[in-house]
Amino acid sequence: MTITLIPVHGLPEVHPGDDLAEMIAGHAALEDGDVVVVTQKVVSKAENRLVEVDPADPLSHKAHVEAEAVRVLRRRGDLVMTETRHGFVCANAGVDLSNVARGWAALLPVDPDRSARWIRDGLRARTGLTLGVIVSDTFGRTWRRGVTDVAIGTAGIAGIVDLRGTTDALGRELAVTEVCVADELAAAAELVMGKASGIPVALVRGVERQWLRESSVRAEIVRPPHEDLFR
Amino acid sequence: MTITLIPVHGLPEVHPGDDLAEMIAGHAALEDGDVVVVTQKVVSKAENRLVEVDPADPLSHKAHVEAEAVRVLRRRGDLVMTETRHGFVCANAGVDLSNVARGWAALLPVDPDRSARWIRDGLRARTGLTLGVIVSDTFGRTWRRGVTDVAIGTAGIAGIVDLRGTTDALGRELAVTEVCVADELAAAAELVMGKASGIPVALVRGVERQWLRESSVRAEIVRPPHEDLFR
Repeated sequence: MTITLIPVHGLPEVHPGDDLAEMIAGHAALEDGDVVVVTQKVVSKAENRLVEVDPADPLSHKAHVEAEAVRVLRRRGDLVMTETRHGFVCANAGVDLSNVARGWAALLPVDPDRSARWIRDGLRARTGLTLGVIVSDTFGRTWRRGVTDVAIGTAGIAGIVDLRGTTDALGRELAVTEVCVADELAAAAELVMGKASGIPVALVRGVERQWLRESSVRAEIVRPPHEDLFR
Repeated sequence: MTITLIPVHGLPEVHPGDDLAEMIAGHAALEDGDVVVVTQKVVSKAENRLVEVDPADPLSHKAHVEAEAVRVLRRRGDLVMTETRHGFVCANAGVDLSNVARGWAALLPVDPDRSARWIRDGLRARTGLTLGVIVSDTFGRTWRRGVTDVAIGTAGIAGIVDLRGTTDALGRELAVTEVCVADELAAAAELVMGKASGIPVALVRGVERQWLRESSVRAEIVRPPHEDLFR
């Protein structure tokens, strides 16, 4: 069983009010069982989650960071480590200037699980296919340098697959094996999108059929503060 | 440009002293530019990083956890969050009972970058191909539930790709874009390996040619404590 990562080429620039499902269906050769990974930036644009900033002041989006954060966990210089109202812990509450027109910043979608559902429902209505949709964003990690893409919203594709109770190749019961396949799918898709190449959508073809089920990043992946050892 | 994730089937159980490069070359249809992702467990077995534990006591490997850790960051119940001598922050110092014969536990390789180099050099000697090798392991995350595979050792494939100074699709200079492609490749490969299916090696075919360069997880990805906001 192989998996193929396929960038979707030719999507036009996305504007507020655009129908992402229609745009994706028009540019991607979708097949049944595909997982469609859509970067947060185009979802935020389609949903008009854009705010004006002073193009002459590289820090003018910081007021929006403070407004979007429900808690500031750490500060160092210009870096603000925040908790968002979705429960994400990320830099700058997800407020971001890259791949947005000069003078504007993009905020995270209000409810990225709902955004994923809208796109999935729109694609299903147009194609009749069983598909998963992941809204992805680029987060740093506590203990490791560099950023990777993770899932901030899902629809029709598992967040976490619980392999506990299954046995390993030697017949021993596996202990901790709650694999976050949604984050692994988002990371995999990023490999063919590339930050600089302006490809905001990729398909992951060939995932396990049983991973295609209803899901929610908020309910499955966000770690509640009471489980958390480092906040 | 698509990327394909290909599981390597048919590898026999690995024992101390086995030549992993020879085993992989004999079972994988390698092509020039492939990245070979090898799970830590078989590397530890080949390098005889196995210790005896009491099969009647599910906690008897904990003494090895304490020995392998250079620092314990947090404890909760049986969970011990540790820093290893490699600089990794992970549960139980990477000491692990799954996919190991009853009565044994596997420790992390002494130097996973060196392990990756050994395998890469062995594959290159046998095939003449330019290949990357990643040794992967399964780590939890501070703020998100579930585990994902990350790179603990690399050879011939970039750890972090720095896109700073390049421009985004709108011609703006990108700010923070040090993408940890090695972790994204490890996560992608896990999607076709699966914890329970006993496939310890996968190929990632079709990566950007310029990612195939000398590298080191220790030097590139491990975040030094002085950069760290949460330790």
